[in-house]
Amino acid sequence: MTLGPLDASEAAVSPDAAARALDALGRELGAGAVTRSEAALREYRDPYSFAGWDTHVASGVVAPTSVEQVQTVVRVAAEHRVPLWTFSQGRNNGYGGAAPRVANSILVNLREMDRILEIDDDLCHAIVEPGVRFLDLYAALKQGGHALWQSIPDIGWGSIVGNTLDHGVGFIGLGDHPQRQCGMEVVLASGDVLRTGLGALPTARNWTAARRGFGPTVDSLFMQSNFGIVTKMGVWLRPQPESYMSCEVNVENEDDLGMLIETLRPLMLDGTIENIPVAFSPSMSAGVFGGLNRADYYDGDGPVPREIVKRMVDDAGVGWWYMRFALYGLDEVVDAKWRRCQKAFARIPGARVTGRQYDGATAQEQVAPRRAPEDGPLIQVHADRTQAGVPGLEILDNISWDEADTAGHLDYSPVAALTGEEAVRQHKLLRTLFESRGFDYASSLMMISPRSFVNIASLWFDTTDEAACRHAYDSIRWMVREAGKEGYVPYRAHLDVMDVAAEQQSFGDHAMRRFNEAVKDAVDPFGILAPGKQGIWPAAMRPAGR
Amino acid sequence: MTLGPLDASEAAVSPDAAARALDALGRELGAGAVTRSEAALREYRDPYSFAGWDTHVASGVVAPTSVEQVQTVVRVAAEHRVPLWTFSQGRNNGYGGAAPRVANSILVNLREMDRILEIDDDLCHAIVEPGVRFLDLYAALKQGGHALWQSIPDIGWGSIVGNTLDHGVGFIGLGDHPQRQCGMEVVLASGDVLRTGLGALPTARNWTAARRGFGPTVDSLFMQSNFGIVTKMGVWLRPQPESYMSCEVNVENEDDLGMLIETLRPLMLDGTIENIPVAFSPSMSAGVFGGLNRADYYDGDGPVPREIVKRMVDDAGVGWWYMRFALYGLDEVVDAKWRRCQKAFARIPGARVTGRQYDGATAQEQVAPRRAPEDGPLIQVHADRTQAGVPGLEILDNISWDEADTAGHLDYSPVAALTGEEAVRQHKLLRTLFESRGFDYASSLMMISPRSFVNIASLWFDTTDEAACRHAYDSIRWMVREAGKEGYVPYRAHLDVMDVAAEQQSFGDHAMRRFNEAVKDAVDPFGILAPGKQGIWPAAMRPAGR
Repeated sequence: MTLGPLDASEAAVSPDAAARALDALGRELGAGAVTRSEAALREYRDPYSFAGWDTHVASGVVAPTSVEQVQTVVRVAAEHRVPLWTFSQGRNNGYGGAAPRVANSILVNLREMDRILEIDDDLCHAIVEPGVRFLDLYAALKQGGHALWQSIPDIGWGSIVGNTLDHGVGFIGLGDHPQRQCGMEVVLASGDVLRTGLGALPTARNWTAARRGFGPTVDSLFMQSNFGIVTKMGVWLRPQPESYMSCEVNVENEDDLGMLIETLRPLMLDGTIENIPVAFSPSMSAGVFGGLNRADYYDGDGPVPREIVKRMVDDAGVGWWYMRFALYGLDEVVDAKWRRCQKAFARIPGARVTGRQYDGATAQEQVAPRRAPEDGPLIQVHADRTQAGVPGLEILDNISWDEADTAGHLDYSPVAALTGEEAVRQHKLLRTLFESRGFDYASSLMMISPRSFVNIASLWFDTTDEAACRHAYDSIRWMVREAGKEGYVPYRAHLDVMDVAAEQQSFGDHAMRRFNEAVKDAVDPFGILAPGKQGIWPAAMRPAGR
Repeated sequence: MTLGPLDASEAAVSPDAAARALDALGRELGAGAVTRSEAALREYRDPYSFAGWDTHVASGVVAPTSVEQVQTVVRVAAEHRVPLWTFSQGRNNGYGGAAPRVANSILVNLREMDRILEIDDDLCHAIVEPGVRFLDLYAALKQGGHALWQSIPDIGWGSIVGNTLDHGVGFIGLGDHPQRQCGMEVVLASGDVLRTGLGALPTARNWTAARRGFGPTVDSLFMQSNFGIVTKMGVWLRPQPESYMSCEVNVENEDDLGMLIETLRPLMLDGTIENIPVAFSPSMSAGVFGGLNRADYYDGDGPVPREIVKRMVDDAGVGWWYMRFALYGLDEVVDAKWRRCQKAFARIPGARVTGRQYDGATAQEQVAPRRAPEDGPLIQVHADRTQAGVPGLEILDNISWDEADTAGHLDYSPVAALTGEEAVRQHKLLRTLFESRGFDYASSLMMISPRSFVNIASLWFDTTDEAACRHAYDSIRWMVREAGKEGYVPYRAHLDVMDVAAEQQSFGDHAMRRFNEAVKDAVDPFGILAPGKQGIWPAAMRPAGR
């Protein structure tokens, strides 16, 4: 089965070589560190892939517990020329989960490396291993009585390191996770252990206090790539604010998007809003948070018609666009910022602007999970918790407006400049692409920064229907190509979409890919680290003529 | 003459090869693009090097005017195996100016590539070529009536691109220049033209609106390195604030440094102070800004005694530490932040906290240059201008408290974590190192971010005295080694200090250097781009055994 420009089966690794490497790993690290049972491997498959497909199936899993063990894993893999595919927690659903790009790769599971090595109250940072989840660091901050807030995504089960390495975001200030990372320890394919920032200086104290040492800064090279295995990372935290306010703007019509964005941007550029706002579409606001099921409203073929969507958002009591954001700071600063936001958004006809202010010192205790309707709408309770850095799993129960247990999604997440014109243009293009292939256009502007945004659009399908699965996987690759012609590239992509996404970045006759692959060959000559990740292939696996 | 671990003469390029390459460049780009007169070359020497020394002397200068011409320069250099050394404006005084690491290199002067390609009022950014100075962008913003402020350093003559690529800073918000860069165009040694950010997508509009496309982000790899020649760069600007306040805290005693830093850090971490504060020492506050001359106070041998320094700061009416910072935002936000700052700093005994508030809309016009004593102290006028993004050259006239015209300086600028303990520890160590070699300890905390700072300390010497020059150059290398043992590495270094600085970053048996040099060999196999910069050498020039 061909997926992407490179046939995954061509690049496949011989099961015998993989088995020998797993044997060797068992001898070196102990049998307990290696798993190859079918049941265990099933857990690490692409969660929404059709069960009968054998692409992206690993040959085994090794779980090192230390940096030295990671070095051993890398050495054994090089000896046997068997590729590794590393994950921290592997909660990469919608993009392939923990599954490897190349079949029969050995998975390197870093969940056992889960120590929080340092929490510094003065410099407001922590040093974590890759297995540490947002939930774990939150618990440690609470337990230690630290007045520090961590930026977290909507679901707390992911790895802080893994999320950062895939360009993830969170929703308090310092929400752009690659930008709040400071200091890394990386095991290279050579077995070298590299430390960045001040960590390159063996005598440095506080090695994660400064991003840059002397010479080029290489940290971002280890994000969305396959140049090394990150084993430690510094992460900046923010001091508990004096005051915290969780807010939302609600606009009635689909066409209000342009005005919403044009109003938002100046508020972000001048620092009024410092966190990452999210503009939810009906599938999220009425579906995931509102608890409405698509099936109760529509049983026809193809996408839900727009007038029915409108009925759903009306029933849920939310407008077409439901944008959350937050304010932090001194009491008077939050007051002034809130007045400015109210005034600005009030200029949009029909906009409703609401917010709830909390004392920063007790906010994390006040924002309890929702247990009953009188606790308020889930969308607000969830926003108040998430924007205060309190991680949870509450939206996992109801991730789709399709109530089927067998529903799966593939995420397509293109970037654009933060202007009303671009937002509307991209929204219309994606709607057309989704609907022309028969999908509901379920999309939200999930990652809004002062100058750009990422629109995360999900293709929903029945994972037990092979034809539906194939249609979804084919459609997303088609969409990436079509939207590529119109100026959009995804910020992240499913395993089967990585090559197509990289293909769009063709400026200078693919100068970026050539540069990345020159680096790949230099630092990983045997191509053992995650070959194919983000479309970067080692020499031996590259398509002919490249 | 041996400078650094690698003898510069060993790596020297044959003058004949360089001459042939310059001939070829003249044929390809026109004779006017190439200069090799002694007089012209003198302008690009290390400005403070002893005149008789022939290290770091270029064989000629080529000034391309377009990206295509830069590609030609790279091709010709590769054909002749002659190294290039690129500068944008070359105002790198204290670190070697525009001079090359390897003698007989050809200088690539980018001053002719001086176009401002875009200024975007909505997304608050500009795209500039490397020859564009801070002064030029300021003039263009004013001329075009843009309500946008640019972060600038204390002297406006430098290149925006050059400053950023050397990890420079400026003093409004977005002051960490590598962090406000977004989107780059780079000519590689292969002749490839690479674009980063969304620029890798040929169809992208607003290609400098987002830092990251799909895959690893490589921009920081082209800063403080020799992997490519940057020909375009996106730079973020900030919207003109409603209110702007230029402030200072003045503390009496040298020993107040720890308390000053401990008070400052929480104000930066919680976002009260968003710009980059500077804590000036007496050599700056009494000398450069106060106009006092060392010679009027002390004619003895060795460093100025501390009690005489105290007399100088008393005469200048400044305390031992004079820290400037600024506030920006809504009127009420600036008011609230100012009250918080006053209250916080007032806890330091003897501290004086002062500030001047400006209407953001007219601030840049209000902060006129100082023409007469009644305009206020130079240190305040200069702060008000610099922190409002108005560039100038006013401190060039009086850069030292040594009045001699022949005075030169070498800058040593170690990084440390932003704690009072670290600030005091580093301050004491550097004072000891400077004074033990007979130098005044002239140092200021010039680059303060919420979690770290860079202390820029200058060794002053008479550039016409060969023994004094040699003593200064030897001493700075010795200092880098001594301070390296104590946990400090410079953020930037003079040509002759680069190898020693890189040598300190030895974690993992020099894993960082090995990584950088693997990348170097991969992307520049003939080693033609700035060999030796930041201690990164191409294979052919590497010391034996490395």
